[in-house]
Formats: sequence, structure tokens, C-alpha cells
Amino acid sequence: MGGAGRRPGPSRTRQAILDVARDEFARRGFDAATVRSIAGRAGVDPAMIAHHFGSKQQLFLAVLQLPFDPAVEIAQVLDGPREELAERLLGRLLDVWDSPSGAGAVAAVRTAVQRDDTAGLVRDLALSRVLAPLMETMAGTPQQRLWRANLVASQLVGLIFARYVVRLEPLASAAHADVVAALAPTVERYLSGRLAGGPPDTNC
Amino acid sequence: MGGAGRRPGPSRTRQAILDVARDEFARRGFDAATVRSIAGRAGVDPAMIAHHFGSKQQLFLAVLQLPFDPAVEIAQVLDGPREELAERLLGRLLDVWDSPSGAGAVAAVRTAVQRDDTAGLVRDLALSRVLAPLMETMAGTPQQRLWRANLVASQLVGLIFARYVVRLEPLASAAHADVVAALAPTVERYLSGRLAGGPPDTNC
Repeated sequence: MGGAGRRPGPSRTRQAILDVARDEFARRGFDAATVRSIAGRAGVDPAMIAHHFGSKQQLFLAVLQLPFDPAVEIAQVLDGPREELAERLLGRLLDVWDSPSGAGAVAAVRTAVQRDDTAGLVRDLALSRVLAPLMETMAGTPQQRLWRANLVASQLVGLIFARYVVRLEPLASAAHADVVAALAPTVERYLSGRLAGGPPDTNC
Repeated sequence: MGGAGRRPGPSRTRQAILDVARDEFARRGFDAATVRSIAGRAGVDPAMIAHHFGSKQQLFLAVLQLPFDPAVEIAQVLDGPREELAERLLGRLLDVWDSPSGAGAVAAVRTAVQRDDTAGLVRDLALSRVLAPLMETMAGTPQQRLWRANLVASQLVGLIFARYVVRLEPLASAAHADVVAALAPTVERYLSGRLAGGPPDTNC
């Protein structure tokens, strides 16, 4: 990785931190894994992690190799009238995945779903960085809101895989407005509509 | 692959056929690739492909390593009252992916989405073996029906990845009836409901 004239030390340290962090996040989850525990196992000072990656959140994103921060995107989505939340959510997803960052994001999810541990990292990321903020906009018990968030995720994940990974046509080439118009009623129903059934204690 | 006492020839031939078939299907698509063209490039008689794999369809499934035939499953789904089609589609998907074959199917899609060529095989399989039969149940122009089929696929693909690959909870552990109740109105709307927008010439 290091270019000409650069000592191999820093990039080896960086890679060692990434390897340990991937394992720690996969074993313990995002919340339980700490910068201190990762630094300890990698044999570096915690300040070295801050130097190379910044925060634990940024280290997590580096492990997943995602080119954008979903938490930043979702914060922007939540900033607006509630009645257009589903449209903004879908529109933002399309904007980000169709941007120059999109190719890197496709590569990241392709790699991440390959193994149980990295798929678990995606699950952690989705829960803590996308679904948790989304749940704060919902009514109902925590169980009901988590069930709704799962349903929203099922449609968004399907859009990502059908449009960007499998590239099903005409969905892969459809204009953003057409995709949003077709899927927004689904996302809105999952966010706040009437749901028949659901796991125990989640009937909404 | 060959057991004790088995000559290495047949399994090498089988692997050579699979390697050429993967490339032919990926380059030309399922319909244009022929048993004859695959046999020619693999340097074997077409009868050898029939001997090892049976039909072109079974060869395609062997390339994808899918443990079941989606065309057989969808035929069973289509056999029943139209007003319960969405429920049967979701119910069958859950039955198959939660069966002992499911683990193999998860491994197959994880591998398939990894590369453009194998993701293309999944797209071909979904179009020709699942979406095409489903489109025959729909009203509208071919473009409208393909758009609707794409939308159905986006929800089904999302269910598969959220429940079986990423294993988002509580969706991953939810009873079939609860998942069907939550998602069937979405699938039904994509199959036959009112859709606002869509690509040019698909407004339904």
C-alpha cells in the first residue's frame, strides 16, 4: 500500500489494526468492541487508532470499506417534514449509490455479505447507524418499532441488490423519481401504516 | 471430488464443462448459450453434457450451485387462486429457504453476487425462471409487466438478504405467517395494484 519513499511501518500498523478490529467487531458487535480492546490486541497505543482512523465509528467504516457514513446520510434524511420521510429515504439512497461513491459501496456490500462475520458487521451498522435513528421517528413499543425498521430494511436492501448488484432491468436504469414513486408507499406503510401480524408483542 | 477407486477423468471433464458453461452463460445469457457451444469449447461431445448434467437448465443450476430449481417452485406457486398469489409466493420462498436446502441456497447467492458475471447469471435465472412465469399472471403491456416484476423482485431479494444473509432480527427468526402478513400487501401492490410512476411507457 505504501508509496515510494514511505516507510512500511505505518501501513503495516494500519493493517494490523484493521485485522484486529474486524475480528473484534464481528465477535462482540459494534457497541461492545472498544478502541482500547482493539488497540490492546493489535499491540498499539489507542492514540495510534485515533491517528490512523479517528473515531471507533470511522474505524468500523474502514473495516467495511464503505465510502460514506450512513449515519451522516440518515441524519440528513430525517431533517425534513415527516410526511415525506419515505421519499427522502429512498431518494437519498439512490443519490448516494448512484454517486461516484456508489461503486465502492457496491464492492463493499458484495464483500461484506460473503462471510458470516462481515455480514454481522453490516447488520450492526444497519441497526446502530440507520435503523436506530429511523426508529426514533416511529410510534409504538420498542419491539413494534424494531419490527417496522426490519421491514423497511428488507425493501431498501432489496433495492440495493436488485438495482446495483444484480442490475435487474428496467429497475437498474430507472429514473430516481420513478423508483421513489413505486417504492415510497411500501416504505411509508412499513414506517407507520397498518401491519397485519408481526412477531409476538409487535402487532401494530 | 472423485471417491476412491474412481478415475479422475469424469470429474475433470465435469469441471471443464462447468468452467466453460459459467463463461458462456455469463457472456451470452441463458437463452443464447447452447449445449452445443459449451460442448464445443469444452472439447467434449454434447452427449457428455447430457450425461453429467441432464438439460441446459440443470447445467445452469449446477453453475450457480442452487440446491433447488426456482422454475419448479414458481410453477407450484402459480397453481392456486390468483387472489392469494402474493401469500403463496412469499410462503413458498420462506419454505424453501428455511428447508435443509436453504443453507446451500444462501451459500450460492453469497457467491453469485460477488462477481459481475455470476450476478448476471442470477439476473438471467430470476428473469427467465421466476419473473417471466410471474408476468404471465399480470395485466398490462410487456413493459408494464416487466416493471412490476422488477418491483416484486426488489422485495423478494430484500427478504432473502435481510432474513437469510444479513440475518436481521426479529425478521430472521419471525414465523412465516408474520412475514407473509407484513409483506404480502407490498407484493400484491407490485403485482397488480396502482403504481404512481414508472419508467417511460410503464405507467400503470
